[in-house]
Amino acid sequence: MASPIDPTSAAFLLTENRNMPMHVGGLQLFKKPEGAGRSYAREMYEASLDVDEIAPLFLKHPYRSARTAGQLVWKPDDQFDIEHHVRHSALPKPGRVRELLELCSRLHSTRLAWERPLWEAHIIEGLRDGRLAMYTKTHHALVDGISAMRLLQSVLTTDPDKRGMPPMWAAQPGTRSSRSDDADEGSITDVPVHALRSAMGITAEAVGMPGALVKTISKGLRNETSALSLYAPRTIFNQQITGSRRFAAQDWPVERLRAIGKSTGTTLNDVVLAMCSGAIRTYLLELDALPESTLVAMVPVGLNAKQSHLASAEGGNAVGAVMARLGSHLHDPADRLKSIHASMRDGKEGLSSMTPAQIMAMSAIGQAPAILTPLLRMQGIVRPPYNLIISNVPGPRSTHYWNGAELLGTYPLSIPINGMALNITCTSYDGKMCFGLTGCRRTVPHLQRLLTYLDDELKALEKAAGI
Amino acid sequence: MASPIDPTSAAFLLTENRNMPMHVGGLQLFKKPEGAGRSYAREMYEASLDVDEIAPLFLKHPYRSARTAGQLVWKPDDQFDIEHHVRHSALPKPGRVRELLELCSRLHSTRLAWERPLWEAHIIEGLRDGRLAMYTKTHHALVDGISAMRLLQSVLTTDPDKRGMPPMWAAQPGTRSSRSDDADEGSITDVPVHALRSAMGITAEAVGMPGALVKTISKGLRNETSALSLYAPRTIFNQQITGSRRFAAQDWPVERLRAIGKSTGTTLNDVVLAMCSGAIRTYLLELDALPESTLVAMVPVGLNAKQSHLASAEGGNAVGAVMARLGSHLHDPADRLKSIHASMRDGKEGLSSMTPAQIMAMSAIGQAPAILTPLLRMQGIVRPPYNLIISNVPGPRSTHYWNGAELLGTYPLSIPINGMALNITCTSYDGKMCFGLTGCRRTVPHLQRLLTYLDDELKALEKAAGI
Repeated sequence: MASPIDPTSAAFLLTENRNMPMHVGGLQLFKKPEGAGRSYAREMYEASLDVDEIAPLFLKHPYRSARTAGQLVWKPDDQFDIEHHVRHSALPKPGRVRELLELCSRLHSTRLAWERPLWEAHIIEGLRDGRLAMYTKTHHALVDGISAMRLLQSVLTTDPDKRGMPPMWAAQPGTRSSRSDDADEGSITDVPVHALRSAMGITAEAVGMPGALVKTISKGLRNETSALSLYAPRTIFNQQITGSRRFAAQDWPVERLRAIGKSTGTTLNDVVLAMCSGAIRTYLLELDALPESTLVAMVPVGLNAKQSHLASAEGGNAVGAVMARLGSHLHDPADRLKSIHASMRDGKEGLSSMTPAQIMAMSAIGQAPAILTPLLRMQGIVRPPYNLIISNVPGPRSTHYWNGAELLGTYPLSIPINGMALNITCTSYDGKMCFGLTGCRRTVPHLQRLLTYLDDELKALEKAAGI
Repeated sequence: MASPIDPTSAAFLLTENRNMPMHVGGLQLFKKPEGAGRSYAREMYEASLDVDEIAPLFLKHPYRSARTAGQLVWKPDDQFDIEHHVRHSALPKPGRVRELLELCSRLHSTRLAWERPLWEAHIIEGLRDGRLAMYTKTHHALVDGISAMRLLQSVLTTDPDKRGMPPMWAAQPGTRSSRSDDADEGSITDVPVHALRSAMGITAEAVGMPGALVKTISKGLRNETSALSLYAPRTIFNQQITGSRRFAAQDWPVERLRAIGKSTGTTLNDVVLAMCSGAIRTYLLELDALPESTLVAMVPVGLNAKQSHLASAEGGNAVGAVMARLGSHLHDPADRLKSIHASMRDGKEGLSSMTPAQIMAMSAIGQAPAILTPLLRMQGIVRPPYNLIISNVPGPRSTHYWNGAELLGTYPLSIPINGMALNITCTSYDGKMCFGLTGCRRTVPHLQRLLTYLDDELKALEKAAGI
């Protein structure tokens, strides 16, 4: 039975090309349970194949033919082969995190073929420290990045002794308990998993009827409200990209970031942005490519119903976006943090004075830049109003497990697009702030150096804060 | 600069679908040189990336657009990314041959995307015995299976001390010395590498102008000459296939096979076919699916210029095909071998009395069944005249090396198609007969059992021959 594809999903499928695969990814690191044998990875792999029924989301693939009158539709895969989608891999020696990130980079570079359901999961062994990894890849036409993270979390438990737990792709009776047990301030708040593409629903509207909504965006941008900035300097991040990807990931204790925030009167999210700002500054300086004016980051933020004047069917959260001036032209780490804090505060104030349609429009920019760029161009807006997207998605605060294996960290892989070659997405988990940096390998050389610079910047911020 | 795609290559590209990927593969096993360190696989991988210029064959990809007036053309990849094509992989624990064959099965199941050059090479570490493996995958639109094997061999040397050797995909000054240093009787003889698709050239003609040549085939089949058999029973191999693959490979000393031939007055190739026949018989008996009449195998054979009345520009070899009755309904191994020997002798005699056009037509059946099947059907020939293809391609008799690493064995992966779910291709190398079995995983369950049965059958034949 074929079912229609909503306009946004179709747009993600149709704008995709070799240079811009439109899938999001997740890297999860696990600790083997006590007493696990040498073949634990294989057992975990076999447990993930052993599924009675596949959830419909993971069973459908895009299909177009004369019989569908050329229309793109979803069709269940009647030859579904789970071994194509779930794979058991290993790392070459010496099995460092470096080899893991190389494998993820490679897996994230390859497009998902339309002829099968649009996802893959790789259970990866061979880390020399004995940890296990899982890399998952899901097309943006199925879930957006945030929902993908939530979906991965939704199958976990806080009970280390629970066994017989199904993987993400198993069909489950009833609804999942998906709300994370906490949500951080200043960031995107909980998105219910059973309304998987709820955030995308907003974008669907933007794409489905470009007229009104895009005019709103364009008006907003031209007005240069405090929430928006039309001026973002050109950087190496803002050029055509290729289909090669590099992924880098690392985590730092949330406590360290929080202490800086406490001592400087800034938020956790401000500190995350300051780390990124300082790291990018060092990176661009080394390439002799730092612009004289500040870089601007698009930062999605969560708004409560009152702030947004919107109450969604799900009980009232909306997503907006702030254009944050990163202060990357400033020499002093403390000055950069101060500048970011002010920019975010102004931005959020600006957002709360926007109309619901304006907030929806802002949201749409963040969710679907690849689709909106041509639309904006039609409105005479040629340059993107920001240099990169930095998202910070709060996750669970407590330790979670899958069939006894402890989740140690979870790192998002995102979608670089033409004109936006670097994406930074962070998520908090169990006292750690996990950074995932996804870039075009050619346009953003030596991406992994940013990890060192993030660490340097955290230390510099601590010093500046007198910690 | 775009260049035209010949009709056969285009046909391979256009008939391809999810269930019938049209690429051939090769698995090569290497022994590390003396004194190789723990990171030898990585060094080998890095050496294969370190290429000044890519050979044009490995740089072009199919392309079609309004600018090419909808025609499929070859276009050099102007964003060629060698790290997409050459990959460094590892096997999960325990790193047996089983894990290697599983990885090859998986890699062989996935289609090559048109948006990039149509090949991949995977350098694989993690075999517990310390050997290294390389799996290569090349689209049939670039090379046929035999040329692919020759191409792999063409970069090797008999000199264990030679270093600085380029990989297969490097552009090379001058022509390669590609003729293998020996060729076995009764099999396909040498195909020069610099005329990569020479065997396919014949098929191109068959496809390019279906009329005359297909009529010849159809006439040949209807005449039931001794070289042909119109009656092949239906088996589980002759049904629609899926896109899942299983690959199994093993080698046996050529000496053992040769001794059986000597003692029974049969050829090496007869013994290979008898091993296959006995193994398939046991396999089908176990599934309660053995037909009462014999299975028929299509066996490509080499013909010298005199036999074929054909002298190609390359100096005179042509390829024909014999329909070999495998005697799979016979209980006694010695009877099966006798029956195969008689069938092959008659078949080759039949071939030598055929006209050049008929031989070309026979050849075409073997090379491109997926393309010819619909053409034959137009001629009223509904059922394939054989149950499976068994090829035996002679390779070098001496030990070969790549940058000091000794090639231990080389195993071909072929193309199952609808109605022909199992393919067996053998190649001799350095005193070993290397078998590669490629099947649809769903249509041919537990394919790997055939390896055990091949071994059993070799023993049974030795016993029957009084060895």
